[in-house]
Amino acid sequence: MTGKPNFSGVIAPVLTPFGEDGTPDPDRFIEHAQWLLEDGCTGLAPFGTTSEANSLGLDERMELLEDLIDAGIEPSKLMPGTGACSITDAAILTQHAVDLGCGGVLTLPPFYYKNPSEEGLFRFFASLVEEVGDDRLKLYLYHIPPVAQVGFSLPLIGRLKKEFPDVVVGLKDSSGDWANTKSIVEAHPDLEIFPGAELFLLDGLRAGTKGVISATANVGARAMRRLYDNWQGPDADKLQADIGAMRKTVQGFPVIPALKALIAFYRDDPGWAAVRPPFEPLPKAEADRLIKTLADQHGFKLAFAEAA
Amino acid sequence: MTGKPNFSGVIAPVLTPFGEDGTPDPDRFIEHAQWLLEDGCTGLAPFGTTSEANSLGLDERMELLEDLIDAGIEPSKLMPGTGACSITDAAILTQHAVDLGCGGVLTLPPFYYKNPSEEGLFRFFASLVEEVGDDRLKLYLYHIPPVAQVGFSLPLIGRLKKEFPDVVVGLKDSSGDWANTKSIVEAHPDLEIFPGAELFLLDGLRAGTKGVISATANVGARAMRRLYDNWQGPDADKLQADIGAMRKTVQGFPVIPALKALIAFYRDDPGWAAVRPPFEPLPKAEADRLIKTLADQHGFKLAFAEAA
Repeated sequence: MTGKPNFSGVIAPVLTPFGEDGTPDPDRFIEHAQWLLEDGCTGLAPFGTTSEANSLGLDERMELLEDLIDAGIEPSKLMPGTGACSITDAAILTQHAVDLGCGGVLTLPPFYYKNPSEEGLFRFFASLVEEVGDDRLKLYLYHIPPVAQVGFSLPLIGRLKKEFPDVVVGLKDSSGDWANTKSIVEAHPDLEIFPGAELFLLDGLRAGTKGVISATANVGARAMRRLYDNWQGPDADKLQADIGAMRKTVQGFPVIPALKALIAFYRDDPGWAAVRPPFEPLPKAEADRLIKTLADQHGFKLAFAEAA
Repeated sequence: MTGKPNFSGVIAPVLTPFGEDGTPDPDRFIEHAQWLLEDGCTGLAPFGTTSEANSLGLDERMELLEDLIDAGIEPSKLMPGTGACSITDAAILTQHAVDLGCGGVLTLPPFYYKNPSEEGLFRFFASLVEEVGDDRLKLYLYHIPPVAQVGFSLPLIGRLKKEFPDVVVGLKDSSGDWANTKSIVEAHPDLEIFPGAELFLLDGLRAGTKGVISATANVGARAMRRLYDNWQGPDADKLQADIGAMRKTVQGFPVIPALKALIAFYRDDPGWAAVRPPFEPLPKAEADRLIKTLADQHGFKLAFAEAA
């Protein structure tokens, strides 16, 4: 790969709002996705861990993706999660995303059976790529061992890239371990690597990563984008310290319910706080504490709250 | 609950055979399921962990279940796995099984997000039961923390049973920890409890469990059934020692590829050895060693090999 990367910048794994009946709410979803792009996101990664994607049905995931595109969002900016424990379902989701023209897909390894062999994981992805069999496929490996338990070793990444150089183009590293991200960038400088948290945005850009795909971009993309646009400028370390401190505050809470509670508060839309089991909504006292902490420590207001 | 249990005896989590193209093979599947019932199984639990159910697509699971019933297998003997990480897909699978008249369903907890709260898991199952909303539903909780990581605590089991006494009727305990099984039977003597390995078949029957749901019943149901039918007889401890020794031999190999290799050998059908990624087939040298060890130590032959 040479030239302009396929994806770069600040990418949000879009939260999935639910209606009162527990089904996904396409109107809130589209509104939020459009606002994220206005707020500084360069791309969107719906159906990630933050999106409660694995708490959605196969059809729900495909319908919501179609909703985004029908609403006018440019498919080239979309990197939907298409992982599943079975090659069959992963191929259905992946083919669907490719057919809609999505710029890429972010794909979990099969995560039910633990301690799979490198060969077994290689065969899973080789079968997936062959089953989809589409030149347009751009696959980003989704490494998130704290949740999936199963992940991508350096040798596995190398084998997949070597076998499918035009397909396996990137990786999201949500290990939370900067040393791991650094080792992947050093071994594979031609991959589009994205750390999974803005704690590593500046270190990453200096080392050669392409940006960040972060849960907290759902509420704080603007500040991340400012750093992304000015990472070689004199204020870069200060900007990094600010976004890192905010991230750490949010990480002190269950992140997905916390982000939804923040949006519910700033949009004055209590329904936004809904999560699907096995998650629980953030209790009101915790939500109040989060909002107050962010306001006190970081002067935090969501951009749409500022605009309102 | 009083009277005759819904399920009892020796239940096999049916292995799923694949054709050369990697898709499930309904002919081999039906033949194997019918043979299991002839070999001593009192019931079948297709689409468990042993069945590579989470490596199957949603539609593949439903089609294979229909194939069994279309082939004449009595639905009341079927306890298909219907778990999924999303309530949406778990409800689709569960409703499908209920509509086909299955005697019960064996349902995993949502297993993507780790360390969910008891309340979150309770809400998952409460939502599932409400979404299916069918008086015929008989739900068996599938506790397999070594693989799923997420499991059922005693308080959670108690809450679910109390809230849905006519629905939540049993549990399979694949913790591999007899003390755990014992504590569940003691706390909930009215539940139909099945240990997930025949190592605990006799201890279980003495303590009040209803039988066993075991991977190795795919090749050794007859011996387990002999013990089940004679557990109060003078030979019970000897029969238990024999089946326990065989189980331990098999457990020394990757169990699912090993069981498929055994069937491939005894049926003289190499295609049976196929597994889906992330599993790998058992290497030939390992398969030979397994077959020889079983023959030398246990005089093991599959019943259909004896009959041939």
